[in-house]
Amino acid sequence: MGCVAGIDIGGTNIKCIMMSEADEVLIQKTVDTPYRRPVSEVVDLIEEVICRMLKECGQRHEELLGIGLGIPGPTNFKTGIAYAVPFLGWNNVNICEMLEERFHVPVSCDNDANLNALGEMYFGAGKGRRNIILLTLGTGLGCGIIVDGRILRGANNVAAEAGHMVIEGDGELCACGKRGCFESYCSATALVRYAKGFVRQYQDSALLRYAGGEAEKIDGKMIYRGCLEGDEASLKTRDIFVEKLSVGLVNMINLLNPECIILSGGVSGMGDMLLGPLKKSVENLLMHKVQECDMIIGKLYTMAGVMGACRMVKENGIKRES
Amino acid sequence: MGCVAGIDIGGTNIKCIMMSEADEVLIQKTVDTPYRRPVSEVVDLIEEVICRMLKECGQRHEELLGIGLGIPGPTNFKTGIAYAVPFLGWNNVNICEMLEERFHVPVSCDNDANLNALGEMYFGAGKGRRNIILLTLGTGLGCGIIVDGRILRGANNVAAEAGHMVIEGDGELCACGKRGCFESYCSATALVRYAKGFVRQYQDSALLRYAGGEAEKIDGKMIYRGCLEGDEASLKTRDIFVEKLSVGLVNMINLLNPECIILSGGVSGMGDMLLGPLKKSVENLLMHKVQECDMIIGKLYTMAGVMGACRMVKENGIKRES
Repeated sequence: MGCVAGIDIGGTNIKCIMMSEADEVLIQKTVDTPYRRPVSEVVDLIEEVICRMLKECGQRHEELLGIGLGIPGPTNFKTGIAYAVPFLGWNNVNICEMLEERFHVPVSCDNDANLNALGEMYFGAGKGRRNIILLTLGTGLGCGIIVDGRILRGANNVAAEAGHMVIEGDGELCACGKRGCFESYCSATALVRYAKGFVRQYQDSALLRYAGGEAEKIDGKMIYRGCLEGDEASLKTRDIFVEKLSVGLVNMINLLNPECIILSGGVSGMGDMLLGPLKKSVENLLMHKVQECDMIIGKLYTMAGVMGACRMVKENGIKRES
Repeated sequence: MGCVAGIDIGGTNIKCIMMSEADEVLIQKTVDTPYRRPVSEVVDLIEEVICRMLKECGQRHEELLGIGLGIPGPTNFKTGIAYAVPFLGWNNVNICEMLEERFHVPVSCDNDANLNALGEMYFGAGKGRRNIILLTLGTGLGCGIIVDGRILRGANNVAAEAGHMVIEGDGELCACGKRGCFESYCSATALVRYAKGFVRQYQDSALLRYAGGEAEKIDGKMIYRGCLEGDEASLKTRDIFVEKLSVGLVNMINLLNPECIILSGGVSGMGDMLLGPLKKSVENLLMHKVQECDMIIGKLYTMAGVMGACRMVKENGIKRES
């Protein structure tokens, strides 16, 4: 039986799986991302992991039917070119072509958030839905959009850059150089920034206790714990996050009218503590009852991207016997 | 030869055309919109106009193959129901069914801005493009979005409500009850509001002269004339409008990555006086060169909606001989 490889290149590690033609995950591996090494070294590493996975799950090389890659940056799905991945030092790198030369099977790539959305739609929280927005609330804010069952790619394959919608005129300075971007209000980074602000006001906050008195050490998990325990600074942190997140979501609902919104990434670990107030806040900001949509937490966690990558390979056409 | 009828129901008038199977406009008529009359009277009026058009262009009733309707409000394209048209007093009205009973041909309807976008794509400024955003900058702000050649309708057919994206936290109060909506910054209404503000500062502005000294009488055409003549208040009005418009457009470009943006409606009459600075401002706010897109003025003016309505009828299937 044939199989496909799904690879998700992240800032910290590269996640790899092998999936059977029957959509079973046969094996998974995680390796450290080589930091600012030549592209060829990254390709060597991916080749090595794929060979190891094939061997360990008893598949012959001929049984590999295709490879799907998730790239953490703007990517041209049609040409296989990664436009820019700053932390890898990549500019207009055609990693698909390089892997095709090694394995002689079709290789396709897409932006990682798109593949997360595809993965959740086929295998996770979005099963049976065809109009989905997925947000990953991690270090930054990623977004994948599915319209009528297909990834929304736009004219040049760089759609779904939700993080750089402006939601506040003259607001927070974003890494992109603009002010008031959605990402600068709704990421794990922003969540922790809010908390650090509030503990200055609430000096007896449990957050400071968890962090051993050092505000700099506050992290997302502490804020979640604080919310569970009714700590005021934590709840206020959650509330301001919900307020900003609902503005961005309502903008997207107005434009896209999705069936459901899936939240993933670190901050989504807050679960109902986040979802409860978020649903109320979004409902209040919508104009029409018919705009309402489900809001749910992703089910696949770090597996969404690699599973989506495998699904993409199947949609794009796998190697056939000649 | 067969023909289809395109009807665009507006706040002031109802525009009607008859289009041949070869996409020629055979005839057009405009009648006043009945203000807050029973739906049946509006249907009577549309029936009468269609019969008159058929007669005047020498078509038999059997030659009418379908009717397309543009509705000025959220509309369920699938069921033919207009959810809400406040100025007509309509709530969940199935006007398609009512017209089908009169003519025994397929009747389809959609939001008017969607049909404007479809019309411009097939017959106007968007010819040959498949990923388009159209904005109508009139009394309000309307929007139609085309993705891969198809109207973006969303899960419940209420996508493309761009006017109610929030672009400023705690900003201008919008008619929808929220603050900071795109529409409250970028409509003909907003343009005139900016001008009235600036003439308080520039008491010798040409705008006041055009308006006979009464700021209340300033309108869009005066602002355009002022810009052409280098009047400072007019230019500042244009600049603030461009600033806000580019924020909303950049939000939409980030999400949708369109090939082109088409501006229509009253304010678009400013042509290059608007487009020149707008292009620069949008370019400055984008992150990637690959996000750049054309910005153009619509070509069909008030004909876009009715021509789009005829096109929709052809896409949805016309009456066939049984």
